[in-house]
Amino acid sequence: MTKRFGHPLNNRAVRITDPLFGHYVTMISEKVLPHQWDILNDRVELAPRSHCLENFRIAAGEKQGIFFGEVFQDTDVYKWLEAVSYCIESGRGEHFTAIADEVIDLISRAQQPDGYLNTYYTLEKPEERWTNLVEGHELYNAGYLIEAAVAYFNATGKRTLLKTAIRFADLITDTFGTGENQIPGYPGHQEIELALVRLYRVTGEKKYLDTASYFIRQRGSSPNYFLQEIEKREGVCIFPEFQDYDLKYGQAHTPPVEQRSIEGHAVRAMYMCAAMADLAMEYQDQDLLEACKALWESTTEKRMFVTGGIGSSGFLERFTTDYDLPNDSNYCESCASVGLMMFGQRMASLTGESFYYEAVEAALHNTILAGINADGQRYFYVNPLEVVPGACLPATDLRHIKPVRQDWFNVACCPTNLARTLASLGQYIYAIDDNTLYINQFISSEVSSGADCNYNLLMEADLTGKGQVRIKTDAPAALRIRIPRYAERPVFLFNDERIEPLIERGYAVINLNTAGELVFKMKIEPRWVAANDRVRSDAGKITLMFGPYAYCLEETDNSDRLSKLAVAPGTKPEVKEPIASLPGNLPALEYDGFRLESGVKGLYGAPDYTIKPARITAIPYGLWCNREPGEMLVWQRVRI
Amino acid sequence: MTKRFGHPLNNRAVRITDPLFGHYVTMISEKVLPHQWDILNDRVELAPRSHCLENFRIAAGEKQGIFFGEVFQDTDVYKWLEAVSYCIESGRGEHFTAIADEVIDLISRAQQPDGYLNTYYTLEKPEERWTNLVEGHELYNAGYLIEAAVAYFNATGKRTLLKTAIRFADLITDTFGTGENQIPGYPGHQEIELALVRLYRVTGEKKYLDTASYFIRQRGSSPNYFLQEIEKREGVCIFPEFQDYDLKYGQAHTPPVEQRSIEGHAVRAMYMCAAMADLAMEYQDQDLLEACKALWESTTEKRMFVTGGIGSSGFLERFTTDYDLPNDSNYCESCASVGLMMFGQRMASLTGESFYYEAVEAALHNTILAGINADGQRYFYVNPLEVVPGACLPATDLRHIKPVRQDWFNVACCPTNLARTLASLGQYIYAIDDNTLYINQFISSEVSSGADCNYNLLMEADLTGKGQVRIKTDAPAALRIRIPRYAERPVFLFNDERIEPLIERGYAVINLNTAGELVFKMKIEPRWVAANDRVRSDAGKITLMFGPYAYCLEETDNSDRLSKLAVAPGTKPEVKEPIASLPGNLPALEYDGFRLESGVKGLYGAPDYTIKPARITAIPYGLWCNREPGEMLVWQRVRI
Repeated sequence: MTKRFGHPLNNRAVRITDPLFGHYVTMISEKVLPHQWDILNDRVELAPRSHCLENFRIAAGEKQGIFFGEVFQDTDVYKWLEAVSYCIESGRGEHFTAIADEVIDLISRAQQPDGYLNTYYTLEKPEERWTNLVEGHELYNAGYLIEAAVAYFNATGKRTLLKTAIRFADLITDTFGTGENQIPGYPGHQEIELALVRLYRVTGEKKYLDTASYFIRQRGSSPNYFLQEIEKREGVCIFPEFQDYDLKYGQAHTPPVEQRSIEGHAVRAMYMCAAMADLAMEYQDQDLLEACKALWESTTEKRMFVTGGIGSSGFLERFTTDYDLPNDSNYCESCASVGLMMFGQRMASLTGESFYYEAVEAALHNTILAGINADGQRYFYVNPLEVVPGACLPATDLRHIKPVRQDWFNVACCPTNLARTLASLGQYIYAIDDNTLYINQFISSEVSSGADCNYNLLMEADLTGKGQVRIKTDAPAALRIRIPRYAERPVFLFNDERIEPLIERGYAVINLNTAGELVFKMKIEPRWVAANDRVRSDAGKITLMFGPYAYCLEETDNSDRLSKLAVAPGTKPEVKEPIASLPGNLPALEYDGFRLESGVKGLYGAPDYTIKPARITAIPYGLWCNREPGEMLVWQRVRI
Repeated sequence: MTKRFGHPLNNRAVRITDPLFGHYVTMISEKVLPHQWDILNDRVELAPRSHCLENFRIAAGEKQGIFFGEVFQDTDVYKWLEAVSYCIESGRGEHFTAIADEVIDLISRAQQPDGYLNTYYTLEKPEERWTNLVEGHELYNAGYLIEAAVAYFNATGKRTLLKTAIRFADLITDTFGTGENQIPGYPGHQEIELALVRLYRVTGEKKYLDTASYFIRQRGSSPNYFLQEIEKREGVCIFPEFQDYDLKYGQAHTPPVEQRSIEGHAVRAMYMCAAMADLAMEYQDQDLLEACKALWESTTEKRMFVTGGIGSSGFLERFTTDYDLPNDSNYCESCASVGLMMFGQRMASLTGESFYYEAVEAALHNTILAGINADGQRYFYVNPLEVVPGACLPATDLRHIKPVRQDWFNVACCPTNLARTLASLGQYIYAIDDNTLYINQFISSEVSSGADCNYNLLMEADLTGKGQVRIKTDAPAALRIRIPRYAERPVFLFNDERIEPLIERGYAVINLNTAGELVFKMKIEPRWVAANDRVRSDAGKITLMFGPYAYCLEETDNSDRLSKLAVAPGTKPEVKEPIASLPGNLPALEYDGFRLESGVKGLYGAPDYTIKPARITAIPYGLWCNREPGEMLVWQRVRI
């Protein structure tokens, strides 16, 4: 472990031109963030009440009223500001500047004299600060504040929010630790760690890094702080489901550096792991790196859905056990896939290994896209792989599954998390180090020369069409291009001449001595994918993928009762025209399958099977539920 | 609608000799009830604290201390007493008489001067009587008290408990109703209705019947009492999951007589339906009968598992929607199958139709037996049809699924409910009216002549062996023998001569003019069963049944990863020797199937199928988990 293998390219340098992702990225700045702003200001009639900004006005003493919302309600505007920052940074956010400056001033006015900033505790429980770290989310809120402040400073050079964040961060670094008069605790929901690392990187103040490190190293140590705190509270809970708190839920059962199996709440787990990777880098800590590697493997090789979704249990939004991957009752929170992307990006940067981007790619191309509708006004919080709308009833096991995207949520973490992720998409496509540009995702975009990169680059990716990526540069360039697993027979041409690059850690290492056009050709065909036999939910089932895209069946193309459909192994799907109403020009896939009918008239009876031919249409999972609502299915029966 | 088609034969007249059910029935009186008594007295170290009897001692003022347990903790001893009564009645319970009399005296001493009896409210919330009908279970407790009192009086002629029950019932009939100064409410958990009908039948007091009728007719009427009560409580809840109370959960969304779809908590629903059938009978109410018929059809033709289990959602232990029958996350509470038996028994009695006993038989032979281990000391509360032990984790969606039976429960409704059901098994086998004995189940047993029946009868059922039932009588007898659906080519011989009985409402109508031996022969072979195509959880799957028994695969016979197994349609199972360690001498079944392997090494990959032959062993579902714990599977993949 020596160097860092690339850091994310600044948003300023990247412009997304991709027909699919470009659609979403443009929409974020033009439609999504303005709409979210209206929701945060309670101007959208259909959305659940937010009150987010009103809470700040009341906390600042500028309005009368009482707090409304969740203990983490403040984070909605913080993540909104972070997303806005990325839009400004990439030249798509000028229209936000005035309102952003205004809300930043408001936030600063809601800060307490000692730097504390949290509208819930300030308005509702001023005496109970830091007494309920398990549930109270104060450090989580602080983390998002800091991330927004760093992002806004980076984008604009303005320091108001950064100063506010630093004042709060200083209070936190003073308050927490194992020293005298310090609280030896750590957050119930990890996030502050990531934020403090970012604050350290922008300020150079080592104490922020050290407190981030303290939070990770103290976590789960003995005696267990959470257990002590819970005992002190004598059963008083904010959230009823935390009555019998499971330490694994919050990854506090053992110190993170000793953890080898990914456990508990999926978003908490991913945020923690991303921070661990940051700290492994900053401290060059081999033990933390080993833990990160094991936790990555546990996540992606044992507990991840084929869509890049994570979290098998609806109850507590959490990981369960190896190979337990139910398709119709899972959670796969959109935020958890955001966290997975953050973790993977950092692992690749730490190790130089491209394979970490495989899961990042799966999450981005499938679950992240599924999280928001093509018109940018509605969201999935939960991303199942099999939906029968009639079964998704309130007050049942499937109450968390919504068969259509929602306007907003009482717990509204996902919409703004998706927005900040898509608004900073360039960071997942490109990384740069002293002399090398890493190309990690194949999403059409332009890199303009600047501080990080001294040439212009244009990438045109056409994975599901010609199966190629064209990369033009206007000067010599040192590139590392990820060879994705789905790329068969990769071939590189530079200015029409075949080159044979060295493959190192999954990257094609290509040094171009002149400007020119590099073409990365690969054979990409729709492919059937099966799961390990230990995954009982996918036993005897297969699913269709095409490049990075997981495909699914929708009722609108295939009629209902999708569970009756079957397909023979080796069936060759036909690549069809895209469905016109869906963005991105991704092809639909069609193939011959079967409709298997049991012949049972009542509820149960002697089987009298009939097998009818069925023409089956599959579309990209990330685009499901953008037409007629109905059933959806990812894993279909293989007829064997 | 005119007459009643048989009432249950008194336990006094029936002795169970069946190798399987006889084992359990004997165990109930000899082991189960003594063991439960020890638990109720907190003498069993491994079992969770009960405190049930201690609560009564404290409420009676004879001990110092505070209430412990659930609001319905009292019912554990009531149901225990009811089971004891049936044992005494059938001559197997003399050893309980002294302790029963003693505990009955204790219960009576805990009764309040005005007749009220409930240790929770008396000790914890004396001012809050009847203020929380939705959650408080006061009427539910009262119902079990009354049922125990009637049963004990019937068994012994002793009136102490009956008097106690009557005093409480009188308070209830005075308290509830639409009259002035009455509470226009009804129970959150139905049970009192059934009990008041029984009390009416034993006392002849019409007011009990009328109050039972009132509770059913008032339920769900407008304005909705539950909603009014909840509003008055301003969100204060006993149970956190009732925070957003769903009226359907408690069948209070519309008056029961108008209900056509079975909804909500499965036990509540079944107890209500059983009471509705009682009231339809007593009042000769055609509208109630129509509702009962529709609710029965909704239950058994749309929402019942093949094991006779009901309740598809673990959360709230409830029905969900038609054909939503998940095998590994379902509830299928043992008590719900008890309720289904009660409902079906009454419907058959009301209509004279034998088909109601099909579902009773499925519940009894599968889920009820599964609810208790062969040694009578451990219980399943929840009865899944597919278990992978490692996935049944606390604090996840599968937290309600236990992979092995438990010593006892914090909510301990099932163990005593199973005990009272098995202790009174005769009522489900035989019914009698003026001149006809109905034979509804084929469980070897003896009927002795007495008040109800003026001859002795001996039934030897051997369904899975010779496929026959031998019935000997010592005098002329009018019989109605249910022809079960699994009986192919039923043939009757009387004293070795073929007879051709009339078949009426699913019963063979047989009038024997002399003593003799009737043999009911049928072809019963192991049979494959499939589900309706709308049941997505069973799509492309089949299961094996043999007579009334659902069969399942266990890991101990078939190794793990049962989801890999597949079987061709038409495969003929071989009937094998019983597994020696399991009670009842039921054959194991063996057949040739396949082990389907995807060939995927990691989590996902290109399928590379191999199909290996596999010899598969199936055993009766009701006996699962009586050997090495491990995986279990009812529905297996059909290879087609």
